[in-house]
Amino acid sequence: MVKKFVLAFGLMSLLFPTLAFADDPTTPQLASAVNAVWVMLAAVLVIFMQAGFALLEAGSTRMKNAGHVAGKTILTFGICAIAFWAIGFGLAFGDGNSFFGETGFFVSGLEDQAKAAFSSLAAADVPISIKFLFQLAFAGVSLAIAWGGFAERAKLSVYFIFSILFTVVIYPIVAHWVWGGGWLAQLGMQDFAGSTVVHLQGATAALVATILLKPRIGKYNKDKTVNLIPGHNQVLSVLGVIILWIGWFGFNAGSTVSAMGDGFFGYVALTTNMAAAAGGVAALVISWIYFGKADIPSMLNGVLAALVAITAACAFVDTWAAIVIGAVSGILTFFTAQWFEKAGIDDPIFAFSVHGIAGIWGTLSTGLFATPELAEKVAIGGPGLFYGGGFHQLGIQALGVFGAFAFVIVLSFIILGIVKATVGLRVTEEEEIIGLDLSEHGSYGYPEQMKKANQSGVSV
Amino acid sequence: MVKKFVLAFGLMSLLFPTLAFADDPTTPQLASAVNAVWVMLAAVLVIFMQAGFALLEAGSTRMKNAGHVAGKTILTFGICAIAFWAIGFGLAFGDGNSFFGETGFFVSGLEDQAKAAFSSLAAADVPISIKFLFQLAFAGVSLAIAWGGFAERAKLSVYFIFSILFTVVIYPIVAHWVWGGGWLAQLGMQDFAGSTVVHLQGATAALVATILLKPRIGKYNKDKTVNLIPGHNQVLSVLGVIILWIGWFGFNAGSTVSAMGDGFFGYVALTTNMAAAAGGVAALVISWIYFGKADIPSMLNGVLAALVAITAACAFVDTWAAIVIGAVSGILTFFTAQWFEKAGIDDPIFAFSVHGIAGIWGTLSTGLFATPELAEKVAIGGPGLFYGGGFHQLGIQALGVFGAFAFVIVLSFIILGIVKATVGLRVTEEEEIIGLDLSEHGSYGYPEQMKKANQSGVSV
Amino acid sequence: MVKKFVLAFGLMSLLFPTLAFADDPTTPQLASAVNAVWVMLAAVLVIFMQAGFALLEAGSTRMKNAGHVAGKTILTFGICAIAFWAIGFGLAFGDGNSFFGETGFFVSGLEDQAKAAFSSLAAADVPISIKFLFQLAFAGVSLAIAWGGFAERAKLSVYFIFSILFTVVIYPIVAHWVWGGGWLAQLGMQDFAGSTVVHLQGATAALVATILLKPRIGKYNKDKTVNLIPGHNQVLSVLGVIILWIGWFGFNAGSTVSAMGDGFFGYVALTTNMAAAAGGVAALVISWIYFGKADIPSMLNGVLAALVAITAACAFVDTWAAIVIGAVSGILTFFTAQWFEKAGIDDPIFAFSVHGIAGIWGTLSTGLFATPELAEKVAIGGPGLFYGGGFHQLGIQALGVFGAFAFVIVLSFIILGIVKATVGLRVTEEEEIIGLDLSEHGSYGYPEQMKKANQSGVSV
Repeated sequence: MVKKFVLAFGLMSLLFPTLAFADDPTTPQLASAVNAVWVMLAAVLVIFMQAGFALLEAGSTRMKNAGHVAGKTILTFGICAIAFWAIGFGLAFGDGNSFFGETGFFVSGLEDQAKAAFSSLAAADVPISIKFLFQLAFAGVSLAIAWGGFAERAKLSVYFIFSILFTVVIYPIVAHWVWGGGWLAQLGMQDFAGSTVVHLQGATAALVATILLKPRIGKYNKDKTVNLIPGHNQVLSVLGVIILWIGWFGFNAGSTVSAMGDGFFGYVALTTNMAAAAGGVAALVISWIYFGKADIPSMLNGVLAALVAITAACAFVDTWAAIVIGAVSGILTFFTAQWFEKAGIDDPIFAFSVHGIAGIWGTLSTGLFATPELAEKVAIGGPGLFYGGGFHQLGIQALGVFGAFAFVIVLSFIILGIVKATVGLRVTEEEEIIGLDLSEHGSYGYPEQMKKANQSGVSV
Repeated sequence: MVKKFVLAFGLMSLLFPTLAFADDPTTPQLASAVNAVWVMLAAVLVIFMQAGFALLEAGSTRMKNAGHVAGKTILTFGICAIAFWAIGFGLAFGDGNSFFGETGFFVSGLEDQAKAAFSSLAAADVPISIKFLFQLAFAGVSLAIAWGGFAERAKLSVYFIFSILFTVVIYPIVAHWVWGGGWLAQLGMQDFAGSTVVHLQGATAALVATILLKPRIGKYNKDKTVNLIPGHNQVLSVLGVIILWIGWFGFNAGSTVSAMGDGFFGYVALTTNMAAAAGGVAALVISWIYFGKADIPSMLNGVLAALVAITAACAFVDTWAAIVIGAVSGILTFFTAQWFEKAGIDDPIFAFSVHGIAGIWGTLSTGLFATPELAEKVAIGGPGLFYGGGFHQLGIQALGVFGAFAFVIVLSFIILGIVKATVGLRVTEEEEIIGLDLSEHGSYGYPEQMKKANQSGVSV
Repeated sequence: MVKKFVLAFGLMSLLFPTLAFADDPTTPQLASAVNAVWVMLAAVLVIFMQAGFALLEAGSTRMKNAGHVAGKTILTFGICAIAFWAIGFGLAFGDGNSFFGETGFFVSGLEDQAKAAFSSLAAADVPISIKFLFQLAFAGVSLAIAWGGFAERAKLSVYFIFSILFTVVIYPIVAHWVWGGGWLAQLGMQDFAGSTVVHLQGATAALVATILLKPRIGKYNKDKTVNLIPGHNQVLSVLGVIILWIGWFGFNAGSTVSAMGDGFFGYVALTTNMAAAAGGVAALVISWIYFGKADIPSMLNGVLAALVAITAACAFVDTWAAIVIGAVSGILTFFTAQWFEKAGIDDPIFAFSVHGIAGIWGTLSTGLFATPELAEKVAIGGPGLFYGGGFHQLGIQALGVFGAFAFVIVLSFIILGIVKATVGLRVTEEEEIIGLDLSEHGSYGYPEQMKKANQSGVSV
């Protein structure tokens, strides 16, 4: 029966040369609906990652700051949503030059605006409203990563200011370079779902914040030895990481912006999952060997680092390579986290190690592991060093990493430097000691437990 | 092109009487499958909102009641599921008169029953089993909202009784009026996903409960001044609100009951998201101005209030209007919550302010902001006051709000009044002081922490 | 252009009467994409169940073990993912003999390998990468169930060893028997989503672990009376159960591996939901009658037991039968949990009662309640005893239960017996008393709360 149809179809094509299935009014609409449902699901998963970050960051910091840490996640996502809707999305994906978009501000959600302003997004037959939500979710993740570097000492007002400026001035520019038809896109940079665009950017802002804010009180002794400031709730951190893991299926596999293409989005989900598994196991094992104890926070960072790294590479590499990339990330992040801590950089949840170092490694990894078949299928760049591509793709990847890092570090220093010099970045010493829940919000996140702690004379 | 297609299609139908797109065995089936997947996803998201309510309510109340508050969520959703399956769904969506449905009880999940009993649902080509799950999720949300007014003092048996009666006697009647072809549907009331049907109903029941139950011990002093009874865990509350936020993508965008129509469900998701963002930011800012501290519970209520308000309006208004509606909700809820508290109504998680006031505002807002194009697209009612519709639609909206409010307040007073006079509504003073975990369930939700608290002599 | 197509199509219909849309090359691709999105959603939901198990198990155990309990969930899922990718999936679903698969190791995610190695999976037109993720999620659930029996006393190294061996030697064998074309599949065993394959297997391994590990210190007195060791956080347990509940929509309804067939996946979701509701309510009521207090952990176990039981039956039974099956599960699990506890088996989160007893009951239940129509629709086995099928199907179900139970109990005793005799299963008495967070990982999961507890002299 299939054969008959194929014959018939072939005949029809001869008789009516313009006849092609793409002209059938229902199948494209159906395909668009299927893609829309898939990307909507992906957008929901990525927005849910805000819960993952809120839990991970709250769980990894102290009880006196827990309400603040969790609550500011919602606040800053809200600010980001409005700023990205008004300005950021147009700068990132609007038609424009090689450096930023010039159209598509104040997203209406209507296809008229989409057609006029977003030709770089036209290939994906998904409604502009869903594309916007999906991309907003990415901007929100990048911003959430940045907060790691501000944790437990920045003023609430800084969260307002930096949310707006990061969403308007920093993130969309680099996003345009790589995904909006900008200069890195033209060079063929492979960053499928944003190891550089999303993770390295957020992490670089976090790094600048840690440097300008200086370490938390009590982190370092006078002899420069390091004190451990453990997070107060590993169960919440674990829940956060599982939410992030499942969110990443939307993050990476959703970046296909399509459910067609013989299930390629499934392949991307597979490589993503295998990398995460390898990263977590590798980091736990290395911590066991190195510390003599299987350290849970290290394992959680290993999972996340692997997910960060595979974010660029998920669509370009073999399944076994995903496992290698993930395992290497887990180990790299473990050692760099130690190193930064010893170097005097107090990054409370290791944002730069997890999202920056692994983001760089992941972006470079496609220059090593990208296969010719997958590079061709995705139609971005070429094969990596290990697949006969020489150093060409690796060089483009390195250039992209360098460009993004340099841009974000300069802009972040300028923005946060001005904030520091004017309104100030950091709460007072007294406020930091009593905790940001009380100082910035007027009430404890855990009022009953903190009250007890205070009454029983235990230092917190 | 569309016109041409219609002509051509008409012609074809004449030539080949059996040929009609609806008769094509596969594309409608495919469209139905796509819609089914979308509504199933939406149903899962809305059922997941039970976790959001459990966490929000538990986080916003005290440790001694936490196990009870969280646990009763599952219990009452279970009761609701059975009661809605047996009776409620038929009353709400079954064929009947202008006031209630008369068919479709004891849902079989088979299309035979669907065809015979649910003509009001026939337009959506989604399996009846999925329609039922989606609508059950809505009934469950309305019920979960009501519990806010019962918190920290109602007897467990009341949860049994009111779950059944709310699901069978209250919720489905108003749902039938607006969504089941009843008198408000006939008038053209615009309540896309239930600002009135779901939120105002639940909130009104909560209000009656707060009045009949009276304030919690310790809430008011003899001079009528108010004591703050802070919730014990803001991190759980934040997690609850993020879960509710993402659940709302199912709630509102799923109410299209379709993934077709050029991605209209994406547009609805967009307005929903923008309102939530605006509501949270507006509420935080207003609390900062008014209290001098950026209050996190106020921000959380602002997010939810905005989501409640946009629930009616999401399909009828422009994106910028969604932002306005959301921001106004956040501010309205902030001030009304203060006002009710001062007026002696102890509504522990501000259910009436968040779901009632914002539900009213949201329902009325389409009477102001509904655009002619969107009202036509959705094919319910007409444009709002600001778009040349005059006071016509606004009047219908006000009538709908009044009708639902009056019905629910009367029925709730009758039901809860009878319960109060017979089995009683409230636990004893001693039981309330030791907490509902011990009094109603025989064990603490946090046994180790409560034991410590008791042993170290700290009052809880 | 549209017109041309319609005309052409009409002509074609006349010329080739057998031409039907099912032969059209794009609709199968579309159908495949719809199914792929559905199964991907289902896979994400089932992987999210890891969060459910982490929270349920952590909430149901003590604070000193909480970080360990939650954290090991991620570790063991990571190990499982790699082992299932390398070996397990091929053994379970690869082409082979009646006992295990012999092809398809080291899953590439490419359709070439899929066609060559997985003919038992060919019927479902979903990409092999998504099928793998979906099946991996099931293996991960089975493994997570097993950990219940190890809780609060097993060494971390045991989690490494048993994760690998369970994923490679135990789970895939029984999966092959029932789902991979093995001997139970050939007999027509009805286990739609794995009451036996997933739940009974995990629970049986848990039972063996409880026997070999012996009870926790303090569980039993010298006179063999039982001490209650309550879990430390019911809110987390409740959240875990809600996550599991929604995850089960993926688990059961996703096992259709299709969104076609007139929304049959929705029907499966409906029976699943109704069983869960009935199980939770029934268990709470029975605990209220039996204990005099409405016990929340019993209710949570009732929900899960009902979900476990309906897992086999969801596609074969009427909606009312689902309610009966669920309610019976809730009650059965309640009493068997008591019984095992009194018999000296310390199963900290009642894994064998919830997943084992209910798994057996659920598997047998299709032998009672399977309707002829549904058995025919699913095309596995025949009707049950109450529908004129006699004892035939019930016998096959009993044989399947017995076969799986016998296999897993023998293998688990061998594996864990060897581990016990070599590296050892259990931490030292001292380590158990200080808790696994410190002994196995070097830091508390709740460092601030544990520190306070220790300083204020409260025993934990």
